[in-house]
Amino acid sequence: MSIVPLDPIGRAEAARAVLDAKRRKKLTWTRIAQELGRSPVWTTAALLGRHPVSEEQARQVGKLLDLDELTVEALQLPPVRGAEAVDPTEPVVYRLEEIVQVYGGAISELIREEFGDGIMSAIDFEMDFERVADPAGDRVQITLNGKFLPYREF
Amino acid sequence: MSIVPLDPIGRAEAARAVLDAKRRKKLTWTRIAQELGRSPVWTTAALLGRHPVSEEQARQVGKLLDLDELTVEALQLPPVRGAEAVDPTEPVVYRLEEIVQVYGGAISELIREEFGDGIMSAIDFEMDFERVADPAGDRVQITLNGKFLPYREF
Amino acid sequence: MSIVPLDPIGRAEAARAVLDAKRRKKLTWTRIAQELGRSPVWTTAALLGRHPVSEEQARQVGKLLDLDELTVEALQLPPVRGAEAVDPTEPVVYRLEEIVQVYGGAISELIREEFGDGIMSAIDFEMDFERVADPAGDRVQITLNGKFLPYREF
Amino acid sequence: MSIVPLDPIGRAEAARAVLDAKRRKKLTWTRIAQELGRSPVWTTAALLGRHPVSEEQARQVGKLLDLDELTVEALQLPPVRGAEAVDPTEPVVYRLEEIVQVYGGAISELIREEFGDGIMSAIDFEMDFERVADPAGDRVQITLNGKFLPYREF
Amino acid sequence: MSIVPLDPIGRAEAARAVLDAKRRKKLTWTRIAQELGRSPVWTTAALLGRHPVSEEQARQVGKLLDLDELTVEALQLPPVRGAEAVDPTEPVVYRLEEIVQVYGGAISELIREEFGDGIMSAIDFEMDFERVADPAGDRVQITLNGKFLPYREF
Amino acid sequence: MSIVPLDPIGRAEAARAVLDAKRRKKLTWTRIAQELGRSPVWTTAALLGRHPVSEEQARQVGKLLDLDELTVEALQLPPVRGAEAVDPTEPVVYRLEEIVQVYGGAISELIREEFGDGIMSAIDFEMDFERVADPAGDRVQITLNGKFLPYREF
Amino acid sequence: MSIVPLDPIGRAEAARAVLDAKRRKKLTWTRIAQELGRSPVWTTAALLGRHPVSEEQARQVGKLLDLDELTVEALQLPPVRGAEAVDPTEPVVYRLEEIVQVYGGAISELIREEFGDGIMSAIDFEMDFERVADPAGDRVQITLNGKFLPYREF
Amino acid sequence: MSIVPLDPIGRAEAARAVLDAKRRKKLTWTRIAQELGRSPVWTTAALLGRHPVSEEQARQVGKLLDLDELTVEALQLPPVRGAEAVDPTEPVVYRLEEIVQVYGGAISELIREEFGDGIMSAIDFEMDFERVADPAGDRVQITLNGKFLPYREF
Amino acid sequence: MSIVPLDPIGRAEAARAVLDAKRRKKLTWTRIAQELGRSPVWTTAALLGRHPVSEEQARQVGKLLDLDELTVEALQLPPVRGAEAVDPTEPVVYRLEEIVQVYGGAISELIREEFGDGIMSAIDFEMDFERVADPAGDRVQITLNGKFLPYREF
Amino acid sequence: MSIVPLDPIGRAEAARAVLDAKRRKKLTWTRIAQELGRSPVWTTAALLGRHPVSEEQARQVGKLLDLDELTVEALQLPPVRGAEAVDPTEPVVYRLEEIVQVYGGAISELIREEFGDGIMSAIDFEMDFERVADPAGDRVQITLNGKFLPYREF
Repeated sequence: MSIVPLDPIGRAEAARAVLDAKRRKKLTWTRIAQELGRSPVWTTAALLGRHPVSEEQARQVGKLLDLDELTVEALQLPPVRGAEAVDPTEPVVYRLEEIVQVYGGAISELIREEFGDGIMSAIDFEMDFERVADPAGDRVQITLNGKFLPYREF
Repeated sequence: MSIVPLDPIGRAEAARAVLDAKRRKKLTWTRIAQELGRSPVWTTAALLGRHPVSEEQARQVGKLLDLDELTVEALQLPPVRGAEAVDPTEPVVYRLEEIVQVYGGAISELIREEFGDGIMSAIDFEMDFERVADPAGDRVQITLNGKFLPYREF
Repeated sequence: MSIVPLDPIGRAEAARAVLDAKRRKKLTWTRIAQELGRSPVWTTAALLGRHPVSEEQARQVGKLLDLDELTVEALQLPPVRGAEAVDPTEPVVYRLEEIVQVYGGAISELIREEFGDGIMSAIDFEMDFERVADPAGDRVQITLNGKFLPYREF
Repeated sequence: MSIVPLDPIGRAEAARAVLDAKRRKKLTWTRIAQELGRSPVWTTAALLGRHPVSEEQARQVGKLLDLDELTVEALQLPPVRGAEAVDPTEPVVYRLEEIVQVYGGAISELIREEFGDGIMSAIDFEMDFERVADPAGDRVQITLNGKFLPYREF
Repeated sequence: MSIVPLDPIGRAEAARAVLDAKRRKKLTWTRIAQELGRSPVWTTAALLGRHPVSEEQARQVGKLLDLDELTVEALQLPPVRGAEAVDPTEPVVYRLEEIVQVYGGAISELIREEFGDGIMSAIDFEMDFERVADPAGDRVQITLNGKFLPYREF
Repeated sequence: MSIVPLDPIGRAEAARAVLDAKRRKKLTWTRIAQELGRSPVWTTAALLGRHPVSEEQARQVGKLLDLDELTVEALQLPPVRGAEAVDPTEPVVYRLEEIVQVYGGAISELIREEFGDGIMSAIDFEMDFERVADPAGDRVQITLNGKFLPYREF
Repeated sequence: MSIVPLDPIGRAEAARAVLDAKRRKKLTWTRIAQELGRSPVWTTAALLGRHPVSEEQARQVGKLLDLDELTVEALQLPPVRGAEAVDPTEPVVYRLEEIVQVYGGAISELIREEFGDGIMSAIDFEMDFERVADPAGDRVQITLNGKFLPYREF
Repeated sequence: MSIVPLDPIGRAEAARAVLDAKRRKKLTWTRIAQELGRSPVWTTAALLGRHPVSEEQARQVGKLLDLDELTVEALQLPPVRGAEAVDPTEPVVYRLEEIVQVYGGAISELIREEFGDGIMSAIDFEMDFERVADPAGDRVQITLNGKFLPYREF
Repeated sequence: MSIVPLDPIGRAEAARAVLDAKRRKKLTWTRIAQELGRSPVWTTAALLGRHPVSEEQARQVGKLLDLDELTVEALQLPPVRGAEAVDPTEPVVYRLEEIVQVYGGAISELIREEFGDGIMSAIDFEMDFERVADPAGDRVQITLNGKFLPYREF
Repeated sequence: MSIVPLDPIGRAEAARAVLDAKRRKKLTWTRIAQELGRSPVWTTAALLGRHPVSEEQARQVGKLLDLDELTVEALQLPPVRGAEAVDPTEPVVYRLEEIVQVYGGAISELIREEFGDGIMSAIDFEMDFERVADPAGDRVQITLNGKFLPYREF
């Protein structure tokens, strides 16, 4: 039996390092997104590990946040997606789940009526996040925008 | 042992009757929504059983779709919400689930950064559905809009 | 409490009626597919309830199989897709599941290497089924063919 | 209570080492497969840990990728197969799951019609992966090929 | 909304009818198996719905047990297999599950040692059931016999 | 907060050490079983951690395989049984699960018919494993032999 | 499609009929148990469907409770056991589950210490139920009594 | 990123240390229970981590078993109870689960008949474990004794 | 095969009948509670099927709501409690679940600190429901009140 | 493969450090809450990791409990909420779950009757914990107080 090194650093550890550095440097996601020339939603998702980050992008983030070389390398690993990437019972996330429970069937109906048999793509897809001022309390506005894909008849 | 009547008609059966009548009458959700003076998303969700329908609204829908009295009554029953109200693996709905997997963590981060500790309400909430023309293929656009609710410190 | 009619016939009941009629008439899926001018895989999946069937297609099938009017109507209802549409432990289906367990990771790797970050579409998708003669025992050959969809950077 | 060594390296760790070395050396799965005289699908699955690798094969891969002795040894351990070998919600893999949901029943029907009572083997089985050029966007093509096995009546 | 007939009789209903008739006629599975010229294990599994029954076999069983025509027809429907075909917590069945928990790993090891990388087929498979007299209490003896299938290297 | 030693070695670690040593020494389970005067099935299950191993047996195995003292001690720990002791989706094990799905109900019926209300014990139980030569391909034969236990009426 | 009769009455329906009749006749389980010459625990479990009831026992119970012939027949069907026979979250049952959580490990330890490697049989088993008077509030006392079965070394 | 100490020792680690020391010192649970003036069942459950252990009790056990100070401290931590405290498929524990499946409904009925609407407490509760000699094989006898708690009507 | 009557009416059906009658008669739970001399929370829970209802109480409710005799009888059946009695994802109920997620650990800590090792009874328990006026929006106030039960050391 | 540091300390580790220090210093939650000028329920939940703790609050707690700098920093990390934050089968917590099972439906009914369609907020929410003296045994009293939020019709 031989002793082996601990696991090398992966996307999850790189994400923790980004969160730590961002807090210490008092930077915002919006600021990091500007650096990359990408939207804040894509940037945040990518740095949390859900999208690939190119070598150039990893270097830019590394410089802005003073990340060590190991983390900059790890940011370039393939993304990690799937059900384990988020806890569905975390309160912010659960509200999204509940919205799917209440409105999921209506979305299916309206897509069928407006476009025919098919889906809204989650791949050819963009998301936007905005704060909307409201005298009765400001509101969170999230826009989903995905290409309609028709089922193929063969 | 005595013989009892079958279950009376509920919200699920009323929803099926609405879907049948809508198809036979070749009406759209948009048209029904106009009749009620409500948005198509709310109207579709409500008639599928996810929101309460007032007596007046039920009568309006009943007249437009020629529904029988039993169905008009059943539409006024309390809504049925929760995880069983939608199949999470239906392909349209699953894309929404996958979007939550990929972007749920980013939404939590951005709400914390922009608003502080709290959530986007799924109750004081509106949703909009739109078709966006695009030469590379039209797109589905869904807008979520909910009040920010801060956690209370006590 | 009032007595209400039983559930009207849906896609599942229409599928059973098709299976019954096909057995009585000693017809094959290939023969039915020829009638519709579609492939046997699409035709079988559609008549089992997984794809929409147009009014004209439903009439053609109804005539070929001597289906009653109720079934012909039910065939035109929206498709029913999702995890409950098939038992993952049925022996034929389980082999497909096991193949995903053994080769799913390799497929992810090969798509990333050959195409970049994205997926094989299950919507813009075709499937082919063939018998391949082999002296050591004939073989089942199934071909999956789906458009590559790249993730969008925004 | 005594201190014991950490776990020795297994198939999962060997797979990570292969992925790391392959990226550093900018080699492709196809190139590694040529070295072994095997197909890219089998080679990728085997090096990810799903198939046994012979001593000779492990040495060849080790030389090509400059792997250390520990990894070359670990590649020769028995394969690890089963549901935990892949995340069913990873987006590429989920499309395969969804294809089984939509077409699994049709495959069962077509095997019964063409071959009789039995299954397509997942053991006496081969898989092929190909890129198919298409002006509307290139396509992924995956071919499954398994021996038909009839149930035995006894 | 129209009234439709109840579900036609399937394999599950046919199995109940066989069990009822067998009890009324005081026949054993062994006797029914002799009639079919098959083993008691295959015969019992087949009549419970797990294997196909040919038209001739269905007629033989129907005559022996005085089954009505509807049941004889239903016996010829395709078999129903999968996890729902048996309750894994039924006490007799659970002992089999527990045996797999205790000896499953050993079986994997012994197959690998004796035959190489592969499985015991559950399709090209026979099972035998026997009572073994023992002064300390008679014993149940079950023999599993399946073809070894080697994994294919391609 | 104080630093504590890592977990001491348990049955799982002892099993891995046995597997490693057996491979290095090119010994078979049959050979180890002869050393202990036990059957190969019992021996394999016991050394994998499913049965208790006496001090004398542990010493014999330790000598044959050149195990260190820590492993010899760990082999004498209580056995670890239960659902987590085996992955039910490992391909060899899954075939056993599928056999229970197809034949479990038949076994229940045949035990009831032959013995009355009761079970085959999984405790007062033996299992045998054999290779059966067959020109059409050799076969795996597994024999289960357990005492019949009648339910008690009180 | 043909109309078929509803399901015949089974053990569950027979149990409901017994509960109804017992309430109407204001009889106790103890009284019914005396009639059968069995203990109240066995009698209650058997009439709820967990144990077989002989023809003579079914007749005795039928006469005492004025059950119809259909119910008397159904009582003689095979028992239905397994996890679905009781709701583990019913408050009385859950306390038993909680007791297993708190004391299950201790029972395993004490059996191993006192008897060696083996189990307490749940088949060669009796249970007793008693009310114990106590000035601080009467107590429920349940006694489990099962044969020790040693694992067999082979 | 800073290096932090490993987890301090908890109730699980203290339990393992007790089991190890007890084996090395060849002591029985009964002997340890005498030392504490408590029953063997309570003592075993408490030292396995299911009940709190006072400072005095921890010192007594520590002295008897020669435990180090860290373990004596850890024994005084709050108990850990709940479903994860025991594996429900461990063979000894599963028999208890199966007994609940078979007799749980009968216990509910007998408590309702004898005491009215309420439960047997799992908190104001005692358990006894005994070996009962029997010529046909000794038996395990476990006695559950809990206060009856009536539901409150308010 | 014989035709048998449908299921007799149970607590679930009685609850639906109460809800229907209450709506038709435009009565409130508070009014029904006054009739019974019980609190609104207990009354609502009891009539929904979670608590037993005495013959006298059933008669009072029957008279107030004009229920038929069958429903009045069914109200006197034993209560149905357990996890299936409520959908944990219904939005009102889910907030209670989320409160347990956030504050459950704190409640455990505070009970241990204030009372010692034990629980708050859910049986010797009362609940109160109140509307609290608030200029920023009225509030729901729910009070849980249960006897502390100490674990018994034996 | 490079060696990386262990995980930095998070909210879970900070919570354990607080629990340890509180025990060593013999402080109560009430005392810590006074220090922060917050209620004991909020304070306990926050220090267990369920609510954010400001830098000033972390310093106050750190001084009172003599926490090291690492722990004081970790207390300021974002809160961790969701289903994994508490074991639903821990006996104190399970009673709360059982209360939701028994009274959840009644709460839904009473909110609908008193306030209309909506929920009690779990975010704009306070909880109070109190000991109520009672000659028959002291009682735990927990008060939930949340803003009513009406569903929005749009």
